[in-house]
Amino acid sequence: MKKILAICASLLLTAGAMFAQELANFNFGGRGARVVSPEIQGDSVTFRLRADYATMVRLSGSWMENPYGAGEEMRRVANNVWEYKCPLPSPEIYTYNFIVDGVAVNDPLNIQVQRDGTRFLNMLIVPGKRTENYGEANQRGTVKYMWYDSQSLGLNRRMVVYTPYGYENNPKQKYPVLYLLHGGGGDEEAWTSMGRAAQILDNLIEKGLAKPMIVVMPNGNPGQQAAATLNLPTKQATGQNAYVNSLVKEIIPFVEKNFRAIPNRSARAIAGLSMGGGHTLSATALYPGTFDYICPLSIGSQRSEQLDQQLQGIKKAGYKLYWFGCGESDFLWESAKQLDAALTANGLEHTFFVTDGGHTWANWRNYLNTFAQLLFK
Amino acid sequence: MKKILAICASLLLTAGAMFAQELANFNFGGRGARVVSPEIQGDSVTFRLRADYATMVRLSGSWMENPYGAGEEMRRVANNVWEYKCPLPSPEIYTYNFIVDGVAVNDPLNIQVQRDGTRFLNMLIVPGKRTENYGEANQRGTVKYMWYDSQSLGLNRRMVVYTPYGYENNPKQKYPVLYLLHGGGGDEEAWTSMGRAAQILDNLIEKGLAKPMIVVMPNGNPGQQAAATLNLPTKQATGQNAYVNSLVKEIIPFVEKNFRAIPNRSARAIAGLSMGGGHTLSATALYPGTFDYICPLSIGSQRSEQLDQQLQGIKKAGYKLYWFGCGESDFLWESAKQLDAALTANGLEHTFFVTDGGHTWANWRNYLNTFAQLLFK
Repeated sequence: MKKILAICASLLLTAGAMFAQELANFNFGGRGARVVSPEIQGDSVTFRLRADYATMVRLSGSWMENPYGAGEEMRRVANNVWEYKCPLPSPEIYTYNFIVDGVAVNDPLNIQVQRDGTRFLNMLIVPGKRTENYGEANQRGTVKYMWYDSQSLGLNRRMVVYTPYGYENNPKQKYPVLYLLHGGGGDEEAWTSMGRAAQILDNLIEKGLAKPMIVVMPNGNPGQQAAATLNLPTKQATGQNAYVNSLVKEIIPFVEKNFRAIPNRSARAIAGLSMGGGHTLSATALYPGTFDYICPLSIGSQRSEQLDQQLQGIKKAGYKLYWFGCGESDFLWESAKQLDAALTANGLEHTFFVTDGGHTWANWRNYLNTFAQLLFK
Repeated sequence: MKKILAICASLLLTAGAMFAQELANFNFGGRGARVVSPEIQGDSVTFRLRADYATMVRLSGSWMENPYGAGEEMRRVANNVWEYKCPLPSPEIYTYNFIVDGVAVNDPLNIQVQRDGTRFLNMLIVPGKRTENYGEANQRGTVKYMWYDSQSLGLNRRMVVYTPYGYENNPKQKYPVLYLLHGGGGDEEAWTSMGRAAQILDNLIEKGLAKPMIVVMPNGNPGQQAAATLNLPTKQATGQNAYVNSLVKEIIPFVEKNFRAIPNRSARAIAGLSMGGGHTLSATALYPGTFDYICPLSIGSQRSEQLDQQLQGIKKAGYKLYWFGCGESDFLWESAKQLDAALTANGLEHTFFVTDGGHTWANWRNYLNTFAQLLFK
């Protein structure tokens, strides 16, 4: 046995020497120069980029006063490294990129990247109370990419499904299900990537703050099979409620067949942001009594006779929780207030969770982290 | 019902108007300017980048004669768009990026991106016979990210597991398992991202060319819990065969408990590239008789008395397939030839699959696409 171990050791040493050569295009980036970015030191954070021939390098960050603007100028320090130092923003997950002579560039020294629709952006995670549930818990659930056949949409479609820690080891236990819907421009990966849904649920469940639950994150663009990264053919969607119908008539049965889901209304929650909030309102209006927990986020609705009828239908069918959140600087803030007023006028008990901020993932993570604690209780 | 539908329609129209606003940092990139990149037209491909203030823009592509070099110059055409046109390389999946005034930049118009270790690179997929199994099949398996506790390594660790199409709908069927190992610099996502493992298996299984099988892709860096993208604490690994021991003693039992895996040697295959090829050689040497199918890729071994003893152990324990592949311009080509010679000298029936090319994913995809058809038959 000793000899075999010696051979294996020599094989592994050979393998070790290959580290730099396996990757077809591997290089050491800025590592050789010991440049670090981003670097959090006390109350400040410094971003650095080596750009030998650039004439102007800027940094655009989601924490800046105008996150859609041209960003802030970086200054050239030693060895063609450009640097930008600023006070550390308050705890949150931010995104940023560099702009080198007018072109958006990711930070090659930061492997933490989110896909925001068609763009890849670096992440800056500022630790603190606000973000404590956004990092990895000790007990982690499983994230599954799977496909279902939608007869009604005529497409094989992908969804992302989270099952909580312990799901595999407790084969008799059944779980409630949260259907968690993304917004316009998003896809089935939005909630696990930008939304940190798996981490938030892992942390809440580990701390005993949320019930163990399955979270289903479908693709809400009815003509699309899956995220555009897969480059699959799309199809013109037919009918205005095509996706919502598929959600209730196809996705729910699929989930309740393929997972150990409790198959009744008291174990179903629906939540969605923006367009997904619209889907939440539509699904509960068209299929009252299907979900006992209803959480539209950053969405509203103009007051009207039809809305009142809709809400009366939901009231009549009954529910256990109607919770909705919106930021005061959201461009939909006025219509959110109208939805709040309509719910009150129609006698629907509800929570209107008002925050600062706008139509942002900072709010949606916070909302999920908040309402998930209220579900199935 | 008509009124409800009308309301839902208006809600969805509102949602539609939000398309551009949901994403905190959303912009339309070059889309407004109708710039397309990459654009395949007949026998050529054109790459384009809008760079208003750049003084020099280059393109670095893995198909170029020197993929590690400085790339090729792009030329400025109208509207500050830089362009590079070249003959379409032969069918394969290539990677590329732009270099703007010395800084590596991803193509903002191409959403297809691979993570190669710490770098994000755009993909160029050239269609043809060679790549026909690298795209999406009609029948797609499930890809699962899950965690197992390694007592021996003292870490909770992530693996990626592929289950074939039909796994969920055939709850009595059991499947053979391929343990598919990545190389140095890689992690548990390497085979599904750069290696296209899910697509290759989907296609082969759909065409009846491969047996439906489970594919387990663990993380082969024994001190690491998961890909560095998760930013989890690492740990100094203890013992030279720590990972291989965990693979056989912890991962196999975990898989055979949590999946409907056929729990015997005739239903177990092991394959790995480079460092993972080293792991394959070590695992089969230390645990002969565990895997009936043995496929080291782009690896070799110096001839020695100890190697002979090792191979005799494998021969004595028996196996059904010993298949290994290497490219003639691989930097390990000489040692691969030595392994071939040692297998022959020791009387181990085997296939030495020799290709052109080197230590590249182009070869590893091809090898998987080839040997997967020989497993469990």
